[in-house]
Order: sequence, then structure tokens, then C-alpha cells
Amino acid sequence: MVALVEGMPGVWLRNNCPCPECRDPRSGQKLFQVTELPAGLVVRGAWEGADGGVEVEWGPDGHRSRYPGGWLRANRPGAGGGTSDHRTEAGKELWRAGDLAGRMPTASWEDYVGAPGERARVLAAVQRLGFALLRGVPRREGQVLAVAETFGFVRETNYGRLFDVRVEPDPNNLAFTSARITPHTDNPYRDPVPTVQLLHCLENAAEGGNSGLVDGFAAAALLRAEDPAAFEVLTRVPVPFVFRDERAELRADRPLIGVDGLGRIREVRFNNRSTGTLRLPADQLDAFYAAYRAFGELLLRPGLQLDFRLGPGDCLVFDNTRLLHARTAFEGSASRHLQGCYADLDAVASTLAVLRRADTLDTLAELFAGPGAAEYLGEEVTVAEHMLQAAALAEAAGAAPHLVAAALLHDVGHFDGAEVTGAELMEGTDNRHSHTGADLLARWFGPEVTEPVRLHVAAKRYLCTVEPGYREQLSAASEFTLQVQGGRMTAREAAAFARLPYARDAVAVRRWDEAAKEPGAEGLDFGHFLPLLTALLGR
Amino acid sequence: MVALVEGMPGVWLRNNCPCPECRDPRSGQKLFQVTELPAGLVVRGAWEGADGGVEVEWGPDGHRSRYPGGWLRANRPGAGGGTSDHRTEAGKELWRAGDLAGRMPTASWEDYVGAPGERARVLAAVQRLGFALLRGVPRREGQVLAVAETFGFVRETNYGRLFDVRVEPDPNNLAFTSARITPHTDNPYRDPVPTVQLLHCLENAAEGGNSGLVDGFAAAALLRAEDPAAFEVLTRVPVPFVFRDERAELRADRPLIGVDGLGRIREVRFNNRSTGTLRLPADQLDAFYAAYRAFGELLLRPGLQLDFRLGPGDCLVFDNTRLLHARTAFEGSASRHLQGCYADLDAVASTLAVLRRADTLDTLAELFAGPGAAEYLGEEVTVAEHMLQAAALAEAAGAAPHLVAAALLHDVGHFDGAEVTGAELMEGTDNRHSHTGADLLARWFGPEVTEPVRLHVAAKRYLCTVEPGYREQLSAASEFTLQVQGGRMTAREAAAFARLPYARDAVAVRRWDEAAKEPGAEGLDFGHFLPLLTALLGR
Repeated sequence: MVALVEGMPGVWLRNNCPCPECRDPRSGQKLFQVTELPAGLVVRGAWEGADGGVEVEWGPDGHRSRYPGGWLRANRPGAGGGTSDHRTEAGKELWRAGDLAGRMPTASWEDYVGAPGERARVLAAVQRLGFALLRGVPRREGQVLAVAETFGFVRETNYGRLFDVRVEPDPNNLAFTSARITPHTDNPYRDPVPTVQLLHCLENAAEGGNSGLVDGFAAAALLRAEDPAAFEVLTRVPVPFVFRDERAELRADRPLIGVDGLGRIREVRFNNRSTGTLRLPADQLDAFYAAYRAFGELLLRPGLQLDFRLGPGDCLVFDNTRLLHARTAFEGSASRHLQGCYADLDAVASTLAVLRRADTLDTLAELFAGPGAAEYLGEEVTVAEHMLQAAALAEAAGAAPHLVAAALLHDVGHFDGAEVTGAELMEGTDNRHSHTGADLLARWFGPEVTEPVRLHVAAKRYLCTVEPGYREQLSAASEFTLQVQGGRMTAREAAAFARLPYARDAVAVRRWDEAAKEPGAEGLDFGHFLPLLTALLGR
Repeated sequence: MVALVEGMPGVWLRNNCPCPECRDPRSGQKLFQVTELPAGLVVRGAWEGADGGVEVEWGPDGHRSRYPGGWLRANRPGAGGGTSDHRTEAGKELWRAGDLAGRMPTASWEDYVGAPGERARVLAAVQRLGFALLRGVPRREGQVLAVAETFGFVRETNYGRLFDVRVEPDPNNLAFTSARITPHTDNPYRDPVPTVQLLHCLENAAEGGNSGLVDGFAAAALLRAEDPAAFEVLTRVPVPFVFRDERAELRADRPLIGVDGLGRIREVRFNNRSTGTLRLPADQLDAFYAAYRAFGELLLRPGLQLDFRLGPGDCLVFDNTRLLHARTAFEGSASRHLQGCYADLDAVASTLAVLRRADTLDTLAELFAGPGAAEYLGEEVTVAEHMLQAAALAEAAGAAPHLVAAALLHDVGHFDGAEVTGAELMEGTDNRHSHTGADLLARWFGPEVTEPVRLHVAAKRYLCTVEPGYREQLSAASEFTLQVQGGRMTAREAAAFARLPYARDAVAVRRWDEAAKEPGAEGLDFGHFLPLLTALLGR
């Protein structure tokens, strides 16, 4: 058994087979159900592939899977990292007010709208710290909806698409009075609870009416440290939260502290205003109320709450499953007016991930402009010119987008912090650049891009074996590196290579690679390929 | 200590104090935080009130609470009922296909739109069985959004406000192909997951393309019965679900079976298409996959899945946290077209509750029309005429809506299945009609309506004591029943009565009561008071 897959649970490994029969290459979705895996699944054999991956033959059905080495190493069961979940405390930076002194996550609306990097920074703060504050947001009625739509979808509720926070003559909620409101989460009586809240200040000339935020995860973690039994009670007891007015009647039964199956804090609900009547045996009620009070006191402990004031044009965006918000009482009712709306965290994370793809393109563009300008192993083109020519050839040949991308990126391993440089390769040390390049690209692209890149060196060794005359047309540099890279394949190696799922694509890339060394050729620039790369990043 | 509150946990009891200092009479929201309750809270004394409730004096702060007897009896800790949560299996009727033979929850669009009772029946089916099928829904593009808006709010996602389920040329999801889709829940990679899904069939002339539904709660309950260890694993291990396309990148880490703090099934996610790579120690992976497969096999067990075919104009509404939906493969791509959208269960429950208030009004209207036409203890008006006159007097006096309602309903205890009838009262047996009436009304109204009703008999005994000449103006019947009801109060009783929170309101109702016995007076009808009652039902 090959070391890389030794001890790996069979069904898990098979369920992650990346072959196009098992996983739709377009959507990345699995094409089979767990119940469709054969009973008595066993690894019949495993071989190290020519490309550093592992090929597995399965019994009893004879299916073959090929796992990239990088994937096997990254996902090795029990290899640390464990189960990630950015919604739990594991993905958060817990804070007290003092931790944010001088670094309150703030951005101007202008920068936020204009610069994707700034947008990513703000959304990352909402994800990691639980909130961010936008300044200079136009003081227009309904603008809060436009803010929500920059990263997600408005969650409409019985309060409408947006709600006005100001003194109302006949309030159905204390929020719509001038009373002090202690730290709480919104809409605990709703399930699913809105996970993001926005509050946009149109006017605040009132005496008082200052804002406060408390990190409910930090408070819950403190409770766990100081009084584990109370913490446990609050994670277990469903508390009825209720709301009732003329047009709505809402009720949710949820614990004050929600944890995941591994006990990690994942959600906080805290709002005594809306608690209904708990129905439990008397001793459990005593235990619950003691724990409830302990948590409530902890939330008010000095140092936890971040105090600030929303000024006109400020828009606060915060995680309503984690942060508690508060306001002081105020006088001068007519002069304080906020507009709020709800949205959801899944869109925050999604928008952030997609913005980070733009970073990927920036990174690649910088590689082409910087290290890409270096000479290409003694050829009369630079590395960047070489790759751009290869991609242009692929495009001219009508190749699928993933192949154009593979051609465009096939030599990134020469310049991404490779331990052995191209120069050293020319001195006789194999820099295994096809592997370092594929591993780098695997951060962003699927196997349809990375595997032809990984195999493009092996494809040269393969072609020299199976195709008469191929070796003769190699450039001098390419003939030299062929030797460093292991020379032509044996017939047996060539047969094994041909069976690899991406062998054919690698051969295609290789042919464009060989032809893309023409000095002074009119080339396309990197920007030409941005739309194609953008689309692929979404696969 | 009065028996009714004996052994009740103090903080729990105090947290439920209904007095207007503790609870906003308009919104019903609590006006204090749990941390604002005094430390060392004790019941200093408790007395049975003249009205069957209990008055408690609290130490150390001297606060007084008055709890209606009905509330104390209904919410007695440990008195059964326990923690209710209609989102868990405790609030559901679990089913297999055969259980629904001949009673598939179906309604015509016309009836659904036209009749509130039919709308309530459909939404109750979604809540209890997990789905309902509307027939004859207009085959208009976008109509599915209008269906969702009859009970809730559309949850917009990266798929849009609505999505087309038909064969797409470049699908980002297998749903948009003609492939068979095995039972699954939608969007497991989203958190919060959309809790309701709608599928509206515009066209289905394809060969194949039939639908199926499986009750995931029933399947999970079966798994728990047959293989408790597997069930436990699936409730504990967070499974990464992922989706990625050009514009979105979603990930949620949630267990396949979600349970509440008491272990009750609350949510099912099942969709192998979207599972990402689990990272766990090898032995845990083995245990997880064995359990996963067991659950998957169980979901396919014959007899569980309800098979049917969506025809043009059918709209399926179902609980996406509970039901798995499936479709068979089909041929003739161009001739199958559904439109779908997402919404949420909290709105289903809310709309249903509000519709049921309309039932309440129907019930009251029927009482006025039926038993209300009976003679009123020998007076020359019927019970209904008497109450309508009282309400008209209250309204003419500019009384608050809750007092008009109390006047309107003060004698419902005479006819709501009272064990002792009005006739018997006149034969000398106190029917305690003020209490039975208040207890009946407490199903729908708050204490501001029920308590003046409960105290309106005591108010007569009180007024006869404190107000010279009051007794002399009583009608003959009223003078007679005064004796049956205990006669005038002692000075001490009168002082205790005056301290009750709703004593003043009860006295006001009593004065209208005495004056509302005028035969042949031009009265208002019950319909006149419907808007006022509707508004109060929302409090």
C-alpha cells in the first residue's frame, strides 16, 4: 500500500474520488449517493502515480480513482485542522472593548464602494470581529437596503424590508420608544433568526441615544471558564421567545447559547423582553435562572461593552447571532432616526470569498508582471511571454477554458517561491516545477486546471516515447531538462501515464508549451485572459 | 403559603409578573432585565385574591405581583406539557407514504385564496405534515412568488428571488439537468438554510420527471429506534456542505440530523451532491460513514417515499428542514418547467396563528348569535343585547379598547359550556360565571381584558359596600344574585379588592353592566366591534 493512502478510511476516500464519473466537472457536485457505493468496498491496490499522486483501484467494482498528492496531504484524516466552521468561535476573534482600542473596524462608504479590497476588509471584520462601521453613507431613506445589497440579500420580516428606529406613537416594540435598551440580540423569537443586522443613522441630535456592542461569544466563553455548569444549562434548555402584534405571532424555542456537535459556541440569543414562560420542573427552573442571571451579569461586566455613538451617515453592520447591541435612553425624540434591516451571514461569507478570488487574479497578474519577466531557461522569450503564447495557441485551437488556463499557468511553478529555481534546473537539479505550480494553483482552481499543469513535464517524457520525431523538435533547453527530469518513459511508464484521467489534457498543454517559444511574436496580454480565469475561479 | 404558588421557583415566578410595571401592556414585552431582579429574592407573603388568583409580596424590594389562577394552573412547573417547540418532532405528525393514502393535504388555489379557513388548513398541513399541494395555481411566470407572499416573505438567494427548474445549457447545479435526483434537502451549504421551499409546475409533458417526498423526521426517528449509535453520530458530526460557482461560494458545517437540547429531532440535511471533505480522525470517519450510509439506506426504504406527479398549475409547498424531495429522470427536456423559490417557516407559523385569531372572532360571533339570544336572568334583554349595550356604553364613554372589549364579553361565562347555567344561578347556585368567562377569554386575550371580566362580580359586591345608594339601584335579578355570590364585602375585603391591579377597570365595567339592561334600546351589532377585537387579538 502506498504510504500516502495507508490507513485512510475507504468509504471516505472513495466518496472524495475526483474523477469525472464521480464528480461533475462543471458544478463540482458529486454524481452519486452514498448508498450507491458498493457494499464491501475495499482498496484492491494503490500505486504512486508518475505525478506524485496516488491511483487507487477499488474492489469489488474495479473503479479507479486518482488523488492528487497535494489533496491527500492536505486532507489526511486526523492531520490537524480538524472540522472547520467559520460560524463557530473557532473562526472568530473574541474581544473585549479594550482589544479594539484604536482599531475599531471602520471604512468610508466611498472606499468601500470603490475598492474591492476595502470591501473585503470590511466583510472580513464582520465575519471575524462580528461587526464593521461604515462612515459617510448617504443619508437617504432606504439607503440601508442598498448597503445590505452590496454583500447580500435583505431578509424581509413582519417589520418590513426595512424598519424605522425612532419614537413611535403606538409602539409594538420597545425599540420604538426613547427608553434605554440593554444589550440584546434581535428577533430571538424568529427561527431562522436574521443573522446580520444593519443600522443606518440618518439623524442623531438627541441627548443620549449612544450605542454599545458586546461580544456575546466572548461573554459565553467567559461563562464557560468561570461556571461550566451554568454554561452547560444555557446550551441545553430551549427558552421560549415570543412576539405578538396585530399582524404577527412569532415563537421560537432556542437555547441562550447554541453550540455545535463539538461543543463550540455558535449562536447567542439574549433578550429578556421577549422571553415567554418556561415550563420545566421546579429544580431545573432554579438552575436555569441562576445560570441566566450569571450570564446576564457577565454581559454587563465592565470592560466588555464597546461604547460609541452613531452619527448621521454611519451604518453599523453586525452579526446578530453573536453581538449584543444596546443603546442609552435619550431625550429629544424627534431628533434621532435610524433605519435598519436584516440580512444573512452566508452571503457575507460568499461575497468575501468571491472578492478574494479577485485577489487571486491580482496575485497572478503580479507574478506575470514581476518574476514572469525573467528569462525562460535560456529561451529567447520570458516566462510570461512563453505562457501567454501557449495560452494564445490553446485559445486559437478552440480549447476548453480550463485548458486555456492550464496553458496560461503551466509554468507558474518556475516562479512561485520555488525552492529550486529555473536557473538551478538548467544546472541539472529538477525543480519539479510542474508539481509546485499545480500545488500553488490548487488553492484556487480545480483538478481540470491543476492536473494538466502537474502532468505537463511527464507529458514531454511520454511524448518522446510514443511519438516518433517528437524528441527531435525539442528546443535545446527542453532537450537538456528532459534528461534532468528523468528522460523518456519506459513503455510501461508510458502505458501507466496514458491511463491517468488528465493525460490527454496534459499532452495538449505540452504541445502548446513546445510551440510557445517564438521570440518577438505578437502576444496577448494577461488582461485578455481575466474573464476566462474569473469564470473558472467560480467552478 | 397559598397552595397555588407553593414550591414555585421564585425567580421564575417573579420573571413572569404580569403587572404593568414589569410588562408593557401594549407590546407585552418585559420591561426589566433578569439582572435587575433584586438579589436574594424571596416570597414574603402570598394571598389568595378575591378573584381566584394569587397575590404575592416580594422581598427584599416589596414589589407586589398578582397572578391569575388560570395562568398559575396552566404553567405550574413540571405539570406536564413540558417545553413545547412546534419545530421539533414533538410538534409534528410523522408519516410514511401509506399514512397519507387518501388524505394528501391538497387544496384548490381558489379556495385557498378565498377562504381563511382553507388557508389555515393548508398552512397547518405544512406545519404538521411538512407539506401541502395547491392545485390550479395560475400558470404565470413568477406566480410562485405570489404564492409565497400569501403566507410569508421570499428568501432571496444567489439563485435569485425565484429559480427556474428546467434543463439549462451550462448548469451550475444538477437540478438544472434532466438527471434523476434522489431524495435530498435543498441548499444544505447555506446557513440559515431556507426552511420552506415552493415548486410551481408551469409545464410537465416530459416522459418521467415524477416527484417524491420523504419525511426526514420519520426516517431519523426510525434510525434512532434501529441504530441509536448511528443516530447519535449523525447528530454530533458537523458535515461540510459546499457550493461554488462564478458568483457565490457557500459553505455550512452542520450535522445531518439536528436535535434540540432535549434530543428532539429538529432539522435534517441530506444531500451527498454538496458534501465537502470531512476532516476527522480515521476511526471517526469510519463510524460517520457507516451511520451516513445507514441513514441513506433508510431514506430509500420501500414505503417511506410518497410518489406523485406535479401537473401544470400545481404548487408544492414544503418544509425544507424536514422533507426530502426527489424526482425521476426525464426525457423531453423542453417540456418540463418548474419555478421555485424559498421562504421561511416562522412566517408560516405566524400567519397560521393570525388566521386562527379570525376563528376566535367567528367563535365569539357564533356565541352571540346562538346562546346569546337566550334570556338574561329574567331581565327584559337577551344576554347578547345586554353585552352589546354595555360595550356601546363603554365606547360612548370613550373607554380604552380593552375596556370596551371587557364590557362586550363580560358575561360570556354564562354561555360557554358553563357547568352551572344562568338558570341555575337564578335558582341559587353561583355559577362563578365571571371566572369561567375570564378563563375562556384568556385563550385569546391578555389580562387587560380578562381580569376586569373576572372581577366584575366582585366589583358589584365591592360597590355595594363602598358606595352609598349603589345597592338600591340594582335590578331585582341582580339583587338576588348578589346574595348567591356572597353579598356585600366586608370593609377588609373591600380594601383588599381596591388594591388589585384591575379593580378600577372592573368597577368601570360593572357600572356599564348595571346600565345595560334597557329593553328595546337601539343597539350596535357584534360586527361593529370586530375591528376593535381584531386589534386586541394582536396584543
